[in-house]
Amino acid sequence: MKNTNEYKGFFINDYSEGAHPEILKRLTKTNKQPEEGYGDDGFTRQAKEEIKRLLGKKHHSEVHLVSGGTQANLTTLGIMLKPYESVIAPETAHIAVHETGAIEAVGHKINTIPTEDGKITPHQILEVLEEHEDEHMVLPRVIYISNTTEVGTCYTKKELQELRAFADEQGMMIYLDGARIGSAMMTKSNDLTFEDLAALTDAFYIGGTKNGALLGEAIVLNNRELQQNFRYAVKQRGGLLAKGRILGIQFSTLFEGDLFFQLAAHANEMADILREGIHREGFSFLVETESNQLFPILPEPLIEQLEKKYLFYRWKRLGTHHTALRLVTSWATEKEQVQAFLEDLRG
Amino acid sequence: MKNTNEYKGFFINDYSEGAHPEILKRLTKTNKQPEEGYGDDGFTRQAKEEIKRLLGKKHHSEVHLVSGGTQANLTTLGIMLKPYESVIAPETAHIAVHETGAIEAVGHKINTIPTEDGKITPHQILEVLEEHEDEHMVLPRVIYISNTTEVGTCYTKKELQELRAFADEQGMMIYLDGARIGSAMMTKSNDLTFEDLAALTDAFYIGGTKNGALLGEAIVLNNRELQQNFRYAVKQRGGLLAKGRILGIQFSTLFEGDLFFQLAAHANEMADILREGIHREGFSFLVETESNQLFPILPEPLIEQLEKKYLFYRWKRLGTHHTALRLVTSWATEKEQVQAFLEDLRG
Amino acid sequence: MKNTNEYKGFFINDYSEGAHPEILKRLTKTNKQPEEGYGDDGFTRQAKEEIKRLLGKKHHSEVHLVSGGTQANLTTLGIMLKPYESVIAPETAHIAVHETGAIEAVGHKINTIPTEDGKITPHQILEVLEEHEDEHMVLPRVIYISNTTEVGTCYTKKELQELRAFADEQGMMIYLDGARIGSAMMTKSNDLTFEDLAALTDAFYIGGTKNGALLGEAIVLNNRELQQNFRYAVKQRGGLLAKGRILGIQFSTLFEGDLFFQLAAHANEMADILREGIHREGFSFLVETESNQLFPILPEPLIEQLEKKYLFYRWKRLGTHHTALRLVTSWATEKEQVQAFLEDLRG
Amino acid sequence: MKNTNEYKGFFINDYSEGAHPEILKRLTKTNKQPEEGYGDDGFTRQAKEEIKRLLGKKHHSEVHLVSGGTQANLTTLGIMLKPYESVIAPETAHIAVHETGAIEAVGHKINTIPTEDGKITPHQILEVLEEHEDEHMVLPRVIYISNTTEVGTCYTKKELQELRAFADEQGMMIYLDGARIGSAMMTKSNDLTFEDLAALTDAFYIGGTKNGALLGEAIVLNNRELQQNFRYAVKQRGGLLAKGRILGIQFSTLFEGDLFFQLAAHANEMADILREGIHREGFSFLVETESNQLFPILPEPLIEQLEKKYLFYRWKRLGTHHTALRLVTSWATEKEQVQAFLEDLRG
Repeated sequence: MKNTNEYKGFFINDYSEGAHPEILKRLTKTNKQPEEGYGDDGFTRQAKEEIKRLLGKKHHSEVHLVSGGTQANLTTLGIMLKPYESVIAPETAHIAVHETGAIEAVGHKINTIPTEDGKITPHQILEVLEEHEDEHMVLPRVIYISNTTEVGTCYTKKELQELRAFADEQGMMIYLDGARIGSAMMTKSNDLTFEDLAALTDAFYIGGTKNGALLGEAIVLNNRELQQNFRYAVKQRGGLLAKGRILGIQFSTLFEGDLFFQLAAHANEMADILREGIHREGFSFLVETESNQLFPILPEPLIEQLEKKYLFYRWKRLGTHHTALRLVTSWATEKEQVQAFLEDLRG
Repeated sequence: MKNTNEYKGFFINDYSEGAHPEILKRLTKTNKQPEEGYGDDGFTRQAKEEIKRLLGKKHHSEVHLVSGGTQANLTTLGIMLKPYESVIAPETAHIAVHETGAIEAVGHKINTIPTEDGKITPHQILEVLEEHEDEHMVLPRVIYISNTTEVGTCYTKKELQELRAFADEQGMMIYLDGARIGSAMMTKSNDLTFEDLAALTDAFYIGGTKNGALLGEAIVLNNRELQQNFRYAVKQRGGLLAKGRILGIQFSTLFEGDLFFQLAAHANEMADILREGIHREGFSFLVETESNQLFPILPEPLIEQLEKKYLFYRWKRLGTHHTALRLVTSWATEKEQVQAFLEDLRG
Repeated sequence: MKNTNEYKGFFINDYSEGAHPEILKRLTKTNKQPEEGYGDDGFTRQAKEEIKRLLGKKHHSEVHLVSGGTQANLTTLGIMLKPYESVIAPETAHIAVHETGAIEAVGHKINTIPTEDGKITPHQILEVLEEHEDEHMVLPRVIYISNTTEVGTCYTKKELQELRAFADEQGMMIYLDGARIGSAMMTKSNDLTFEDLAALTDAFYIGGTKNGALLGEAIVLNNRELQQNFRYAVKQRGGLLAKGRILGIQFSTLFEGDLFFQLAAHANEMADILREGIHREGFSFLVETESNQLFPILPEPLIEQLEKKYLFYRWKRLGTHHTALRLVTSWATEKEQVQAFLEDLRG
Repeated sequence: MKNTNEYKGFFINDYSEGAHPEILKRLTKTNKQPEEGYGDDGFTRQAKEEIKRLLGKKHHSEVHLVSGGTQANLTTLGIMLKPYESVIAPETAHIAVHETGAIEAVGHKINTIPTEDGKITPHQILEVLEEHEDEHMVLPRVIYISNTTEVGTCYTKKELQELRAFADEQGMMIYLDGARIGSAMMTKSNDLTFEDLAALTDAFYIGGTKNGALLGEAIVLNNRELQQNFRYAVKQRGGLLAKGRILGIQFSTLFEGDLFFQLAAHANEMADILREGIHREGFSFLVETESNQLFPILPEPLIEQLEKKYLFYRWKRLGTHHTALRLVTSWATEKEQVQAFLEDLRG
């Protein structure tokens, strides 16, 4: 790409900048304070308490902080599955496509389900189960979903409850990839709380990297069986940072007040403005979303104009004349960038 | 442990504090600058260039930044070895003892060699090779060493040259775990340069976490075969951070001048003062070291006094009355802490 | 199932009976002769020589005998692939469906291609490659095909040559699962020889289990790089039988004359009679095959009649009134069984 | 080795010949009988019932037949252990030395205990457990023993009871490798029954290969948790033979009467004669054994004489003039071979 200074706006992803200033400030302020290593420090303890508070008293969830999403996925799924068990996921799933076979590398097949909107239903999962009759095939055991999905859509509470009921019926577990759970929970239609996630999934993770942290994801284990000795798994896969404090400081900063939610709300608000503006100009979208990812379908000549000034992905070619873009906003997106983009869209 | 404020000195490890202030300053200064993700940012490019400069022009090494030591070890050894190949290591090796079976989890046996000083020799390795006669046993392929070793000792250039000659003779590879390579290279007797490491090992890593960074290790691949597609391996094992910039910024700060070496020199200097002071009082050491780890043998009553004011590990019980401690210094150790410790030692 | 004595014919698979009598005779005759273990016996040496003879002098292939197909697949693919590499296969592939995730259990993703006839083409493979852009996705390295395929179809020499040319162009390897290679090579249209297979694949295996042996598959490694230390891989995966002689005796019996081909020819002949008979009655087939597997589409009431007297699989329901069956013949199928079936088909 | 006809006796191992004639007879007799595949045949059902009968009514063990010992070990231990768990074994253990890292290849570290007689005690295991303090090290979970051990010694009932009590106390499991369990159970001092093994281990396997079968080991799962879906594990690791009947026929032949025990008794008897004869000549043994393996210490010149006429291993060099041999007898060892050997020993 060109020197980033030459762009008027960045919609390419939600991890282009560093951390929210509040995090850097806290890192700097606490820097000289000696702490125990490997996540036994006071900051990590506080971070875990803040997150548990959100999960509600009913639940006895356990929280572990790791460096990234693939690390979270491979460590947790590696513990959830016996050698011959598999995970069912939408074909767009990050674990199925964009983690370089990390789940297979810890020994497990992913059974994928075709999907347009990135979501999967009990009915679709049942079809997969029915095909898996005996020991000549893997035994599907975990349902993997993400919220927001890879295409920016979100699950409703009802959908998640239906998945939970189905999973219980089938003796399956649910794992939710929350790389963008912040944005999901701050969409206008969202009716899911962290308490719901604790009640309705066996495990999920709260994405820090894409919502203002330098790095870090918080794995939440709700199923007690998964909690046993989980630190061993984190250590074995290379996820236990010696200076665990760096994760503790970030997550305690994000969750001691409502910074985590504010940052996601800002990203969504920027996306809303973009969405409305693009709509107003008469363009349609590949998928309808309310979160910080948008997939507008634009004509080629216009895209070429925009590419000179803004950074974004071309997501999917549609015929000869149109392409669906992916625009992503974040805590760091400035209103000026959004307005400039819309102005240039109007031409 | 008690509230850390109640201690007069911290000799428990070299990762108790945050980062060197220069690093935090740089993180803060560059924070809003948008950059590409996954290590394709300008900071990471610069960091790699600075490190390559040290390796010398003759070598065509490749550099990859990852989050931690276990991550570096399991990713690199996972690529160096075919399924049936093993790694030979001293029995004290971090991979053999303190990584929760991470190397076995990627499929490989570790053949261990008993050692007092943490080092291994061609003669000892040959004995292992001679026991491994045919396909009923693993095929040892990589020699794992660390510098400094787990007990703070260091390899000389001659020792490393002998290992290299032996490895070449046997068709083996050498991997050097450099979690504390900074301290090793700043010891008084050290005669190894980074150019030597590039010439004498197939791969090694430069530890950032234990020498002033918040996190991060720089894997250096000298053997060209290992370089091919290595980013795939990093991604698959969960080591490719979305905001790779955080590693890039840290390593470019450490290596654009000589900060990396200054920090290690300071740690060693503090260790030297401790060592001389302890010596002067007539105490001996479990192992003779010149690096930032010391293993003084002290009488129990004295240790109990010191434990009230200083944080350190009891390393090894020796008879009923004595114990060898492990004292570790770092870039963050203050001279006052060291002096206070020595005063309290004198009683 | 009922007592097998109550059936008039067995078309359920090609591994219902024991071994061809010639094999049992040889096992009995050589029984008391002491031999070295683990495949270093004289029978195994002879078997390997007989097979190499068929591969032609130009090739320097290596042969290894193992107990079963999954064992052959997981051992060989485990050696062909680096941790982050994947294998491309038709979605019907045995490794993709019916090996309980054996390939994933040795760490590798399978990228599947939709197919009606069980075969895949360079064009389809290219599409998969084009989707795999960078290190966020696995690196497809091996093309897996089977001959006959899971649905009884066969590759022509031209098709295999095209795959080879494509693989060379892309730096890929070809692995051919030959569980039913005997039947494939004895079909009327077949124009492939073992010399061709040696020239056109990097590795393949010759199925014994489904062509008259008690157990056993012969892995043929044509690519020299794969040959190095392959016995280590066989041993590690549990495929090196202490009494390797049992495999050696069987394969030398099958290949010292043309028994292997005779048995396959018989199976195909029985299938031909069935095929023509079914055709004559006006029924069609789900897939057109020339090998020992047939997929006739029959009306439900007729199937129910046939099920009382013959053993076979219902393969695929087609609407409310019809189902495609799978009929399999073998070296052990008797002409009387086939004629009886056709008579009962005519009603 | 020379042509085997040139030897007067074979003491090199217990798998040099084919199968006991009774087994070949049964294979031949049942050969044309069609049966279901993959171990669902009637012979396998019978074999399992015969073995369960020996285990006693109190136990609800499950039996699975697989092709070899490494296959049995890697499949069963792979199911017993979570990713971060390890198995404790004597340093002489087959899994630790002679299975080419098969256990590591399914992801697990083996913690070895030094031993002279091939056996391990609760006290030794406790020492290993005490070293494993936290999540930086693996979590030892399974105790691996073999009976007979690698050096031909045997566990008493009392020793096994003590291990069981210890394992229960520590929340550990016991796995017994019974490659030579037949010989162990027919030694004169043996006081262990199959009922005891069912009661005192979580899993064990009964070796067929080294006691008269062509191939095959019977895995016995006593711990109910291990039983769940075990066939999936067998299939995934390549251990489920299509013609499972070959294993069923062999084990039903060995266990429907007392053939299994007769064969082991014969092997032991031959060993007894050898042992007494060697003793009578004034030679000593490296280890005292009662089973089918002997380790006499002989002077070099005598060994060189014997090597011309008999096949055996040199086990361990002792000083300049002596070497301990390994002599192994089997169901196929003839009294004449033994007598000839003793005569030649007397010179």
